[in-house]
Amino acid sequence: MDESNMKKFKVGVLAATGAVGQNYVNLLENHPWFEITFLAASKDSESYGEAVSKRGWFVSSDIPENVKNMKVYDARNIEKAAELCDFVFSALGSDVAKELEPLYASELPVVSNSSAYRRDELVPMLIPEINADHAKIIPAQKKAKCFKNGFIAVKPNCSLQSYMKPIYALIKEGYQIDKMIVTTLQASSGAGRPGVPSLDLIDNIIPYIQGEESKSENEPYKILGQATEHGIKNYEGIKISANCARVPVRDGHTAAVNFSFKDKKPSIEEIIKIWENFKGKPQEYNLPFAPKQPIVYRREENRPQPVLDREAGKGMAISVGRLRECEVFDYKFVCLSHNTIRGAAGG
Amino acid sequence: MDESNMKKFKVGVLAATGAVGQNYVNLLENHPWFEITFLAASKDSESYGEAVSKRGWFVSSDIPENVKNMKVYDARNIEKAAELCDFVFSALGSDVAKELEPLYASELPVVSNSSAYRRDELVPMLIPEINADHAKIIPAQKKAKCFKNGFIAVKPNCSLQSYMKPIYALIKEGYQIDKMIVTTLQASSGAGRPGVPSLDLIDNIIPYIQGEESKSENEPYKILGQATEHGIKNYEGIKISANCARVPVRDGHTAAVNFSFKDKKPSIEEIIKIWENFKGKPQEYNLPFAPKQPIVYRREENRPQPVLDREAGKGMAISVGRLRECEVFDYKFVCLSHNTIRGAAGG
Amino acid sequence: MDESNMKKFKVGVLAATGAVGQNYVNLLENHPWFEITFLAASKDSESYGEAVSKRGWFVSSDIPENVKNMKVYDARNIEKAAELCDFVFSALGSDVAKELEPLYASELPVVSNSSAYRRDELVPMLIPEINADHAKIIPAQKKAKCFKNGFIAVKPNCSLQSYMKPIYALIKEGYQIDKMIVTTLQASSGAGRPGVPSLDLIDNIIPYIQGEESKSENEPYKILGQATEHGIKNYEGIKISANCARVPVRDGHTAAVNFSFKDKKPSIEEIIKIWENFKGKPQEYNLPFAPKQPIVYRREENRPQPVLDREAGKGMAISVGRLRECEVFDYKFVCLSHNTIRGAAGG
Amino acid sequence: MDESNMKKFKVGVLAATGAVGQNYVNLLENHPWFEITFLAASKDSESYGEAVSKRGWFVSSDIPENVKNMKVYDARNIEKAAELCDFVFSALGSDVAKELEPLYASELPVVSNSSAYRRDELVPMLIPEINADHAKIIPAQKKAKCFKNGFIAVKPNCSLQSYMKPIYALIKEGYQIDKMIVTTLQASSGAGRPGVPSLDLIDNIIPYIQGEESKSENEPYKILGQATEHGIKNYEGIKISANCARVPVRDGHTAAVNFSFKDKKPSIEEIIKIWENFKGKPQEYNLPFAPKQPIVYRREENRPQPVLDREAGKGMAISVGRLRECEVFDYKFVCLSHNTIRGAAGG
Repeated sequence: MDESNMKKFKVGVLAATGAVGQNYVNLLENHPWFEITFLAASKDSESYGEAVSKRGWFVSSDIPENVKNMKVYDARNIEKAAELCDFVFSALGSDVAKELEPLYASELPVVSNSSAYRRDELVPMLIPEINADHAKIIPAQKKAKCFKNGFIAVKPNCSLQSYMKPIYALIKEGYQIDKMIVTTLQASSGAGRPGVPSLDLIDNIIPYIQGEESKSENEPYKILGQATEHGIKNYEGIKISANCARVPVRDGHTAAVNFSFKDKKPSIEEIIKIWENFKGKPQEYNLPFAPKQPIVYRREENRPQPVLDREAGKGMAISVGRLRECEVFDYKFVCLSHNTIRGAAGG
Repeated sequence: MDESNMKKFKVGVLAATGAVGQNYVNLLENHPWFEITFLAASKDSESYGEAVSKRGWFVSSDIPENVKNMKVYDARNIEKAAELCDFVFSALGSDVAKELEPLYASELPVVSNSSAYRRDELVPMLIPEINADHAKIIPAQKKAKCFKNGFIAVKPNCSLQSYMKPIYALIKEGYQIDKMIVTTLQASSGAGRPGVPSLDLIDNIIPYIQGEESKSENEPYKILGQATEHGIKNYEGIKISANCARVPVRDGHTAAVNFSFKDKKPSIEEIIKIWENFKGKPQEYNLPFAPKQPIVYRREENRPQPVLDREAGKGMAISVGRLRECEVFDYKFVCLSHNTIRGAAGG
Repeated sequence: MDESNMKKFKVGVLAATGAVGQNYVNLLENHPWFEITFLAASKDSESYGEAVSKRGWFVSSDIPENVKNMKVYDARNIEKAAELCDFVFSALGSDVAKELEPLYASELPVVSNSSAYRRDELVPMLIPEINADHAKIIPAQKKAKCFKNGFIAVKPNCSLQSYMKPIYALIKEGYQIDKMIVTTLQASSGAGRPGVPSLDLIDNIIPYIQGEESKSENEPYKILGQATEHGIKNYEGIKISANCARVPVRDGHTAAVNFSFKDKKPSIEEIIKIWENFKGKPQEYNLPFAPKQPIVYRREENRPQPVLDREAGKGMAISVGRLRECEVFDYKFVCLSHNTIRGAAGG
Repeated sequence: MDESNMKKFKVGVLAATGAVGQNYVNLLENHPWFEITFLAASKDSESYGEAVSKRGWFVSSDIPENVKNMKVYDARNIEKAAELCDFVFSALGSDVAKELEPLYASELPVVSNSSAYRRDELVPMLIPEINADHAKIIPAQKKAKCFKNGFIAVKPNCSLQSYMKPIYALIKEGYQIDKMIVTTLQASSGAGRPGVPSLDLIDNIIPYIQGEESKSENEPYKILGQATEHGIKNYEGIKISANCARVPVRDGHTAAVNFSFKDKKPSIEEIIKIWENFKGKPQEYNLPFAPKQPIVYRREENRPQPVLDREAGKGMAISVGRLRECEVFDYKFVCLSHNTIRGAAGG
């Protein structure tokens, strides 16, 4: 297929001037399949460049030229969105998302980064490599919520991106996981802007992130769940406990994972092989941004590290290392994902 | 007792010019019970001030006046040590310690920071609040090793200082621990000098510290063990798994701990009460540097933090917080100890 | 004089729950001369402990016991302040300070940390070691502003604390300074709370601090000025250019200073001697918190450094080092002050 | 010209296993003009991959496949170098460079990163955008030093890369600079490996870098100098004073520059225009890695910043900002260069 002739999808970004929204805008620059045609924020602005310059542009590359002069609409102007684009990415805060996302969903598909509908069993929580098939719940959602033309799909919390794929890869091969204790060392950028004051992260660790442990423990049940006609049925085969800490790292969530299998227990080399061979739907369909190898196993004894590994697969791959015997559970390992890149492009 | 009239113990410091040795020297300044009378390094120097200035003085307060002009002896000059002091603190590296500490021990008691004799079952590994009674193995040690006038006692690895006291406090009250998974976030100073290059800790986490996980898992068995006439018999009632990472923090090792009790399980409030009431021998004997409250429980949801809590009890207390239910084990909590201060003054 | 029998001054703290206010409260604990008797914030609270716990307590030692249960008054309750204390420290933000400080000043002396009246030529900007005599402008201020019982005095910006004393010490000895170029590397805590986001200071420098260069250049003219009957007459004998950057350091502003003398030029050793012998009024009067040696000269080639030197003189002394010939001006040196401690206790 | 048909230059890298050497190797991967054909270190190794894995691979992308299995030769095997490559990049330490570089130069051109021959007036110190014409001194060098087939050219210290181009651009347009005071805030990577211990850069600034101020002041005289038949004649028209500090930043040296013109003084807008239009030889010849715009002027008030700007022009462009009036000199500005990328690819 010749991509250059392909008609691109027209995409809108809600809350486009915030940190997450800016990341979306940045990642969609020169995207082979998507083209930004609508930008929304809390109020109208003549140009995105101007609107953003007031708040600061937080991405290290400059504001993409193609959106610099694009008008920014009030996020309540849903008609305009319906007119200008095929679907929207929502970076709205939870409260606003709760109200506005259903209104958008009535007109267009909404891929949301907010937590407003994450627990709704009719709303799929998608990690494309794991549960692309959860999309089949959408007709039931549309019917139940009376969405004429659209629907809502959500992305999970960034804290679990690093460990869900390694764990799922094992489950997919028939190795059920029984128990899992995870300690996440989460980057500053995960808290958005302004986020954590520098005074709290110079020479320091904050061993608490509001709401994060609960999400890290509960969202996996839904992600690994089964799509039925009545909604996503949670996966119950695994127990997860999470300790979440904020560390003085810019980008890249690291996790230390200790886990046990339910019955069958593969060897260390078998597990590494499963990880290295793991492919998800995005790999099968050869999607842009889909890294060739979604899980990269590092054999060095001191990897993965945020600085060295967060850009693996252009930031879309998970890096795993240090798989070894555990004195208490079966095994333990360390994994890492780039929280902002991996977060924003999952749709 | 009027301390000012008391005759002080005369103390020597081996490897006094290194980072750990400097810390000893600094902590012993104006100590009510100890007085430095002997300093040793890899070779003779006219004055400690001069010897240290070549390597750098790493402590934030200046070199104590009372040692600035003190002669530094070659560490092989054991006769001089025997003549000038009552016992020595050894900050020798493992290889040198292996050779020299027994020679010193023939003449004087040696309290060692090195790992050379940590696994020797005749050498007590002391955390005064926990196992002061292990000192009773010393006569057997002297006999077996033919130490005329001295003996060797060692300090455990700094990584476990934060979690051993909270765990021991529970065991002491009759609550046996079954399993424990620990993830330590260890400070840069724990690696000594020069230690970890700044390039590896700016914006980064290193999820590996050589030998540290093994020590964090195995030393507790000895510390909690029983002193018999044949040596320390390891405690076998607990299984520990440790994940150790280096984080960009100057001082203060943090640990996230998940654990289960063997049979009886106290409530959260009972545990906190046990911790807050915990006293060890140093508290009973009212030792200088012994914090009144060896375990400080913080009820704030985001504590302990290195910057806010590492100085608790002048750096000698352990701070604990976030005791809560665990989805996999019984409970989980976060704890913190000042690695260099707590390390060097434990004897 | 036996301090223990002395009646202490009763002090109020305005904006006591903010970061600067908390620092005042902390520094005044167990102060030999001052006792907190009044706390004010934007609204009434039953207890300081409770009011502060909502915002977070930012100081590393715990909330002083003596104020924990003290009532917090609405900052507009000036009558109460007048009833309860002898004078107030104001940590009010500029806008509120503009309005409220004159109302307080009508009743009591106000020592202010805000910039509201810094440029008013009738309001002395005091660095006690330099211009304690500027207090003599106060009668003119009271008359002009109709302050019955009080007055306003202000503290200068924290960026210039490090270089003003070394420079003044030379001027005091008769060596006029002609030109000076200063580059300040300012700590995160200087921006207060929440201050600079951690995302902006991990692995980064921000070469701009709003309003800071102008204050760093202009306030010295007033500080070094002459108190006349009509107000403070600015010192015009010196030209200063400042470059101000924010660096990833918690506490301690460092400055690199290049400067030329007007005519007479002392030698390097003479300058160091002037600095080491420098005493100000606080030293003459032996004030509590006044460091014995207000300027500490470090002869090591790599000092002063924030971590090693910011606590000099309990945070009240300035550390200076690296005085050397300059290829363009006469000399250059590096200096350092603890921005939050030195800032809050200057009165 | 069709690059794909072009025969590439064969390049050797001396001290290829060290941090600087690794950077060379990394930058030369897939280079359109150069191809690595020779690797040397302190001793022979079967493969570069193995040799490097012993010391650690410090670059964030993995070891390039094409060199992984390449043999590493002892750096004294100059015959082999002469046989296998057209010229060499030398990352040798100064002492070894002093001895070996002339031996290599007898056979091949040597582009050196070491300081061994930086002060030799017959050895050009090249910043291609500034003094590509200094290459014409090479025949005199060959004759004087009896180099049959090669020569030595050196790269300047990394500290001055950020300010030399902005300053030269002005000189090139006829505006002579009179005086200049520079304060550099240098990144950790500038010190190589292991470099500065993390203990010295967490929450800290080190206001001293050995030898750096002298290089920052003196090398510009040679770089801006004139190539005569007897050697490079230093430029004497400018006086520079440098203050160099190490800051907790991974990559990217920032400099605050205050300067005065000799006679003619362009306006701020004229200067910005000169910078934005500046082109050097690499731009004229359209060299690979040569950024289209070698000097990028940022109009935002808080730029350049290491995190946001060090990758400008793929790390090869200089970012400049905050040009403004100076109270003491004519103007001041802030500039930034990526120290390791810009350093290693200048040849």
